[in-house]
Amino acid sequence: MTRNIKELIAQMTVEEKASLCSGQNMWQTKPVERIGIPSIVMTDGPHGLRKQANPGDMSSKTVPATCFPSGAGLASSWDRNLIRKVGEALGEECLAEDVQIILGPAVNIKRSPLCGRNFEYFSEDPYLASEMGAQHVLGVQDKGVGTSVKHFAANNQETLRNSINTIVDERTLNEIYLRAFEGPIIQGDAWTVMCAYNLVNGDFCSENDYLLTDVLKKGWGHGGFVMTDWGAINERVKGLQAGLELEMPYAGPERDRMIVEAVKSGELEESVLDEAVERLLDVIFTTYDARQEGYSYDLEAHHALARKAAAECMVLLKNVEGLLPLNPKQSVAVIGALAEQPRYQGGGSSHISPSRLDAALPAIRDAAEGEVGFAQGYSLTEDITDEDLIAEAAELAASKDAAIIFAGLPDSYESEGFDRTHLNMPASQIELIRRVAAVQPNTIVVLSNGAPITMPWLDDAKAVLEGYLGGQATGSAAADVLYGHVNPSGKLAETFPVCLEQTPAYLNFPGGKNEVFYGEGLFVGYRYYEAKKEKPLFPFGYGLSYTTFDYEQIEVDKELLKDTEMVQVAVTVRNTGSRAGKEIVQLYVKPEGSSVVRPFKELKGFEKVSLEPGETAKVTFTLDKRAFAYFNTEIHDWFAETGVYEIMAGPSSAVTPLTVAVKVVSTGIPFRKVTRNTKFYELLAIPETAAFAEKAMNGSVEGLKQMGAMFAESMGDGSLGQLFEEILKWKKYDGLRSIVGLMGGGNTSEAELEKMIRELNKTLGL
Amino acid sequence: MTRNIKELIAQMTVEEKASLCSGQNMWQTKPVERIGIPSIVMTDGPHGLRKQANPGDMSSKTVPATCFPSGAGLASSWDRNLIRKVGEALGEECLAEDVQIILGPAVNIKRSPLCGRNFEYFSEDPYLASEMGAQHVLGVQDKGVGTSVKHFAANNQETLRNSINTIVDERTLNEIYLRAFEGPIIQGDAWTVMCAYNLVNGDFCSENDYLLTDVLKKGWGHGGFVMTDWGAINERVKGLQAGLELEMPYAGPERDRMIVEAVKSGELEESVLDEAVERLLDVIFTTYDARQEGYSYDLEAHHALARKAAAECMVLLKNVEGLLPLNPKQSVAVIGALAEQPRYQGGGSSHISPSRLDAALPAIRDAAEGEVGFAQGYSLTEDITDEDLIAEAAELAASKDAAIIFAGLPDSYESEGFDRTHLNMPASQIELIRRVAAVQPNTIVVLSNGAPITMPWLDDAKAVLEGYLGGQATGSAAADVLYGHVNPSGKLAETFPVCLEQTPAYLNFPGGKNEVFYGEGLFVGYRYYEAKKEKPLFPFGYGLSYTTFDYEQIEVDKELLKDTEMVQVAVTVRNTGSRAGKEIVQLYVKPEGSSVVRPFKELKGFEKVSLEPGETAKVTFTLDKRAFAYFNTEIHDWFAETGVYEIMAGPSSAVTPLTVAVKVVSTGIPFRKVTRNTKFYELLAIPETAAFAEKAMNGSVEGLKQMGAMFAESMGDGSLGQLFEEILKWKKYDGLRSIVGLMGGGNTSEAELEKMIRELNKTLGL
Repeated sequence: MTRNIKELIAQMTVEEKASLCSGQNMWQTKPVERIGIPSIVMTDGPHGLRKQANPGDMSSKTVPATCFPSGAGLASSWDRNLIRKVGEALGEECLAEDVQIILGPAVNIKRSPLCGRNFEYFSEDPYLASEMGAQHVLGVQDKGVGTSVKHFAANNQETLRNSINTIVDERTLNEIYLRAFEGPIIQGDAWTVMCAYNLVNGDFCSENDYLLTDVLKKGWGHGGFVMTDWGAINERVKGLQAGLELEMPYAGPERDRMIVEAVKSGELEESVLDEAVERLLDVIFTTYDARQEGYSYDLEAHHALARKAAAECMVLLKNVEGLLPLNPKQSVAVIGALAEQPRYQGGGSSHISPSRLDAALPAIRDAAEGEVGFAQGYSLTEDITDEDLIAEAAELAASKDAAIIFAGLPDSYESEGFDRTHLNMPASQIELIRRVAAVQPNTIVVLSNGAPITMPWLDDAKAVLEGYLGGQATGSAAADVLYGHVNPSGKLAETFPVCLEQTPAYLNFPGGKNEVFYGEGLFVGYRYYEAKKEKPLFPFGYGLSYTTFDYEQIEVDKELLKDTEMVQVAVTVRNTGSRAGKEIVQLYVKPEGSSVVRPFKELKGFEKVSLEPGETAKVTFTLDKRAFAYFNTEIHDWFAETGVYEIMAGPSSAVTPLTVAVKVVSTGIPFRKVTRNTKFYELLAIPETAAFAEKAMNGSVEGLKQMGAMFAESMGDGSLGQLFEEILKWKKYDGLRSIVGLMGGGNTSEAELEKMIRELNKTLGL
Repeated sequence: MTRNIKELIAQMTVEEKASLCSGQNMWQTKPVERIGIPSIVMTDGPHGLRKQANPGDMSSKTVPATCFPSGAGLASSWDRNLIRKVGEALGEECLAEDVQIILGPAVNIKRSPLCGRNFEYFSEDPYLASEMGAQHVLGVQDKGVGTSVKHFAANNQETLRNSINTIVDERTLNEIYLRAFEGPIIQGDAWTVMCAYNLVNGDFCSENDYLLTDVLKKGWGHGGFVMTDWGAINERVKGLQAGLELEMPYAGPERDRMIVEAVKSGELEESVLDEAVERLLDVIFTTYDARQEGYSYDLEAHHALARKAAAECMVLLKNVEGLLPLNPKQSVAVIGALAEQPRYQGGGSSHISPSRLDAALPAIRDAAEGEVGFAQGYSLTEDITDEDLIAEAAELAASKDAAIIFAGLPDSYESEGFDRTHLNMPASQIELIRRVAAVQPNTIVVLSNGAPITMPWLDDAKAVLEGYLGGQATGSAAADVLYGHVNPSGKLAETFPVCLEQTPAYLNFPGGKNEVFYGEGLFVGYRYYEAKKEKPLFPFGYGLSYTTFDYEQIEVDKELLKDTEMVQVAVTVRNTGSRAGKEIVQLYVKPEGSSVVRPFKELKGFEKVSLEPGETAKVTFTLDKRAFAYFNTEIHDWFAETGVYEIMAGPSSAVTPLTVAVKVVSTGIPFRKVTRNTKFYELLAIPETAAFAEKAMNGSVEGLKQMGAMFAESMGDGSLGQLFEEILKWKKYDGLRSIVGLMGGGNTSEAELEKMIRELNKTLGL
């Protein structure tokens, strides 16, 4: 159905327009029945639908829905198609439940493993998070259902999320924290964005001009609307002016009235309100028109997808002597309460009522042909080492060919709303693993947790399978992997640290009571470990398979390119084992030199490929300017410097055996105007100004050399000579003004400098 | 001689006034002969006088002067009296050479051990640097000679110092980098301050309003003048307006003319120029009037002071089995070219012509009664492992009772003008130490270096004496310590790291080509190692003695105090060894909890005490608000929060065996106005607003509890309960606005909130 939204707006009163800027209740927008504007329903996500049966009644029951693995798990699949399929399934469930927008995906960066909501988030790497987020959005919106990419932005902790002021430098904000939103918003064209509770550099996200207008609307061309996280409004009118359209939930009549009054008093231009309403109506009608009455979906198929997804997400962290996959004929001891009562999702707003729930124990009983025993091992409700439970488990384990311990974090350890303060598992589980492993060398640990834990018991276990929070089919999926029905192919989307003190944000997480300082800057996740030469427990991108892969060759289609061109990179990988399997080929880029501090390695491409034994694949990647660029804070844009860049391919961030170098030639100008402090090196890098800059610089250098010689003479030794030599060596990084006066070599006047600057600007058309 | 400077200024033309704002040449100010304004002479320091015989002639020879240990060494003495005596001696030499201002002390913080100029700086700790700097200033100025505290501010690297933009948050800037300047400027009343080359947060130090006016003139009440580091001017008029009086050196007539034109055009108020001239004339006349024609000083006494100072500065890092002090009867092998050609000062502007020079070898020959052999061991001019030299040294060492290896960094490794890129000693010296130690178990290493080095050979040496750059008597002082004529009492004023990667600024030193980001924030030096639980090679404050000390007791005169009161802390220390010796008792403070991120330990007091064997001393410290306060960036002032603070005493930053706690009660308000985002916890801490805040907060909490219960019910499980519990637990850190609307518990309107805010401001008189 087509409508002329502008005409509709022209018919609306200020009061009606303002009324659209906040919800009707907890989950719905306000209708304007007089002119046929409907109300739409939004509900929590992102890895399943949390819809209350009657969206207008906060006490009504939550309807069952398929619970897919949460974000941390999904991202470990590194599988764009899988995420898209999950998105499509979510869209179908929304259609069936008459939900117009499902709130997600959540693409915030895992700045610290302590963040209580990390289980919902994808990665510590913005490119990976961005790619996953884009597919999620594309999948859901393909069904005519809206998404809301959240939480925009720099909301990387639960502690004091309502009031904390995130202090983050512009480059880090753009290269790390905002970067993750680009995929779902630009590539995915997400219809809505949800702003975060916190402040960024002094302004609430809900009224942050820079975020909502400069970056989102102007920079990225977002055409949909922005809603608050629930209760994230500060000053209503200020928010509207900054680019916030919808306040959620309804907070009484005052806020709409403030908008009306602001328009009437002239404080707020009505055109601002009109634009907001236009954005709101675009999405409201799009999603409303896509409703399909009586829609139903295939519950079994969705459960099967949840099972497939869970298996794809699991990361095999350790597998000594090929203990896994298990032979079905082996007798096994299944140990741990989590084998019966899986932990498959996290706490908080994303917590849904699953349509089914597969525990691991029955699934293992199905898969195994040998004897399967079970022992509880520990209590899920309290962390007390129970000698009886442990003794029982150890006895059982000793009597079998292998022991599978299901361990992890209880619900109380991880949730929206609070952060962890340590990385420990319950002590009772650690003791259990040690005691079982002491009597059973073939001990396998299967983990359920939303974020990294320390593993003081790692040497005791022969195999470790990280299952994350695998959704409602986590148990059957674990059995699929343990018995080799699925060859594990997940890789970590985050670093597992050795200890908390090792983590990049350790000194500044969760910060003070008013603000948190992102002092680690760009060095988040593997960017930190690689730069600091810290060896983590398991690096980003790491994960084993039941087969093995060799990285054979890397090729580029050109070794020299302009920043306006693209380079094709081909990586040849071979399955060198005896099973079919999937490998996630990762591509990292590193500048050989740079005028700004840059991480050692940054992920710029990945592909998941399926290979039969002995088969090779040539995986190709296309890199453009952005693969080489940093965010330049003078021009407030991405800038790829002229220079040599290493392109590295490998199975993880820590292991990149294939390397090739390309030279990129910049066609840009990294400043807005030539000033007295523009630096020689910047002018030397621009063909039009290089000769001019060189001449000016050399004139100054000559004068300085003479002065250096004079001082050396006066001292009777060489002590000042080295100082002058160094000054000259670094001269190209001085500003133009450095050539004026005695300390500039005495050759140039202020007037001459001014003339030079005018000429340079003219040459560059600035 | 008294003058009416204001009257004098009234007689001056604008041209004459402007002329005073830049130098006459490299080292002198301009006279205005017409009205009797003299020219004064300024020369480099700070640990000795670097005066060219004719200050107007850049090619004239540098006159000899006493070379005292450079800053890194002097600070290791932790001896306020000693620094003051050195200052007095410097003042006397200035009087004798007709120098009116000696450029120093240099109090910049050692942010990274790589900074090439660290040898000139005191410490990584701002309190220690501040105390040392204050005594230096007091000593020099007692003689009627001016000082210039440098380099103001946040100039913590040589790399690109002319153009680098230091990005540092306001709290770190004040708590760490500016803090070091407070002692010399406020307590010492330094007559001049030298601004640094670099930019701080976007503005050149030479035109940085915040630094020169807000902090220096208004905040600290500095009454003297500010000069540029040589060539550090950017825009002349902007500098004057920001609080820069004197441009050095002379840079041609244009800059003075710019000032004249700005006054004439009205761009610059003449009163600004008048104030600058008044500040200049105050110092010019004060120092000029203090000249003493024909003044001479006791060269021998100054050399003796240099020897005493050098010995007090040396830090005994290791002394296994009491190898040191040496018995004069032992035969010794003295090894290393540095024993003959000492490295006793650093390169660059502080490099002086010493009046004498004591090498270690002859001094050891004087001190020893047994046989003394010498082998060169390595070359000082190139780092090539010379097998012949090593074999000769090893052979000699094997034939003696002990070997003393003089090792360290050659001149080419450390200087003003460039930073080191690694912490290594020359490989040839490392090899020498290993080979000598292999044949001589009693191997002692004496180090000459301006900043920390790594010590891969540490296990090989039985004793290590850090001599820093000990000035012209470094050799004789080393013999004094080695033979026990002086019991070593120096302690490290900086952390020695295990490796470069371990250092706090590693990720951001020296930064990019345009800016350097102080991402480690407050966690500089031991503040980092303590917080990260990193074990360095040697911690800040560490140093051994030939005797031992026990920390017996710590007492406070009150356990509860207001932030307007002071607390006396008494620490009892006993000499438990058999020799007289000196101990540097260190006092650290740590808040038990805080609303801002704070370092684990911060030095707030130290005293050096001399104790006979068995003797005890009760060392007393007075702590005021500043010992507990952090720099609050909302009120832009120091603020001591109500709370419990641990006071710790011990022999180093890493070892603080005595602890006592005091409770400090704040009488301040940590914000300027109550706003809708003022937080409950802030109001709860103020007696006048506590009850009101508690009532408002509890009303909201009740509503939220009901909502939480409703959601829990709708989910059929407790998954949302924990979220709501946590929200309530942290409620006091929310802003006042959080109580409005549905998500605030539904009890308060915007209008009611506004009224509350008005009342709270009224109550607090804001």
